[in-house]
Amino acid sequence: MKSIAVILSGCGVFDGSEIHESVLTMLSLSKNNAEVHFFAPNESQATVINHVTGEAKTDNRNQMEEAARISRGKIAPLSSAEADKLDALIIPGGFGAAKNLCDFATRGSECEINKELLSLVRQMHQQKKPLGLMCIAPVMLPKLLNTSVELTIGNDPETIAQIEKMGGKHITCSVDNIVVDHTNKVVTTPAYMLAQSISEAEIGINKLVEKVLEMA
Amino acid sequence: MKSIAVILSGCGVFDGSEIHESVLTMLSLSKNNAEVHFFAPNESQATVINHVTGEAKTDNRNQMEEAARISRGKIAPLSSAEADKLDALIIPGGFGAAKNLCDFATRGSECEINKELLSLVRQMHQQKKPLGLMCIAPVMLPKLLNTSVELTIGNDPETIAQIEKMGGKHITCSVDNIVVDHTNKVVTTPAYMLAQSISEAEIGINKLVEKVLEMA
Repeated sequence: MKSIAVILSGCGVFDGSEIHESVLTMLSLSKNNAEVHFFAPNESQATVINHVTGEAKTDNRNQMEEAARISRGKIAPLSSAEADKLDALIIPGGFGAAKNLCDFATRGSECEINKELLSLVRQMHQQKKPLGLMCIAPVMLPKLLNTSVELTIGNDPETIAQIEKMGGKHITCSVDNIVVDHTNKVVTTPAYMLAQSISEAEIGINKLVEKVLEMA
Repeated sequence: MKSIAVILSGCGVFDGSEIHESVLTMLSLSKNNAEVHFFAPNESQATVINHVTGEAKTDNRNQMEEAARISRGKIAPLSSAEADKLDALIIPGGFGAAKNLCDFATRGSECEINKELLSLVRQMHQQKKPLGLMCIAPVMLPKLLNTSVELTIGNDPETIAQIEKMGGKHITCSVDNIVVDHTNKVVTTPAYMLAQSISEAEIGINKLVEKVLEMA
């Protein structure tokens, strides 16, 4: 049974991990008999957003505590993840990926990556283990791998410009498909960067999970 | 296209709507081309639980605001739901169903149901529209319908005793199946009362959604 890390960063599209993408990832991993290990930074979220109005709240919420809502309590601090014990790593999208795991949402191509994530991903990459990133999360790849990795975030021109400024090779991709960088063992899919419904998002996410497992 | 109300009550198994059950319901409704309308009480949650430790927190969170995390912002106050415009109603489980939509978690068979929910469900029932409830949510049915409705919450003896005290007819059911009360047009499934994995929960939830749509 393959052991897959799923990296979360809160709970909710506007300030944490996108819930549908996270749950669809779990569903696909479960159907493919993979063992899932959830990790999140044991740190405050960058923001807390009222998901009805879109306004910022003054609450302080912990990324791991909120992410535990998605994983039904089963989660560990990102700092405790050990590359040696994992076969692959997947990062769902949502603003958590762009505001908590890095600060791309505010700093674009000048963004910095969470140090625990950077260290884990570099170790896994060095061990030739596959990585799967969806939605906005692939913007982290050029800095995570420090190489000209092929990836997709769908087709948004502004985001693509930032990715290319960081040295990434963006490939336009439809919601029902994936981009595979075979050299770097990286799989990406647009998910809710393009999806108009949850069943549309599921198609690309299933392909991503199956390809990651195939390469693991 | 059938118009289905999904009633949420927060975001997270221990103090709100169970996230997997809610997302799997959406996924199944989306695959079956139904139009989904999310509603939640615009009221405080009964509790806020740290999903890592299980401990109660002192936060105050609004059921609708938190539920909007699951629905990606698309939600309306439960008080605004109109039975005339809806073809069916589905309630996922989680402690939100037993602590926010009613107080079964603390008062058992003496529980009271949220008045907005009671009013909406009674109108829909009177209009012969089907209802689907999963996990712990079916405990509300005897009081919601004020009749000896057939239902399942899986096989938990203590919960069954409380249901029967309220006049419900409990039918033991496996995680991959549903109980259908044809007279009352009510469909129930155990979901995470029994599920050991998300893919197990999906089987019963898909059957529930398909049966509700068939009867709508």
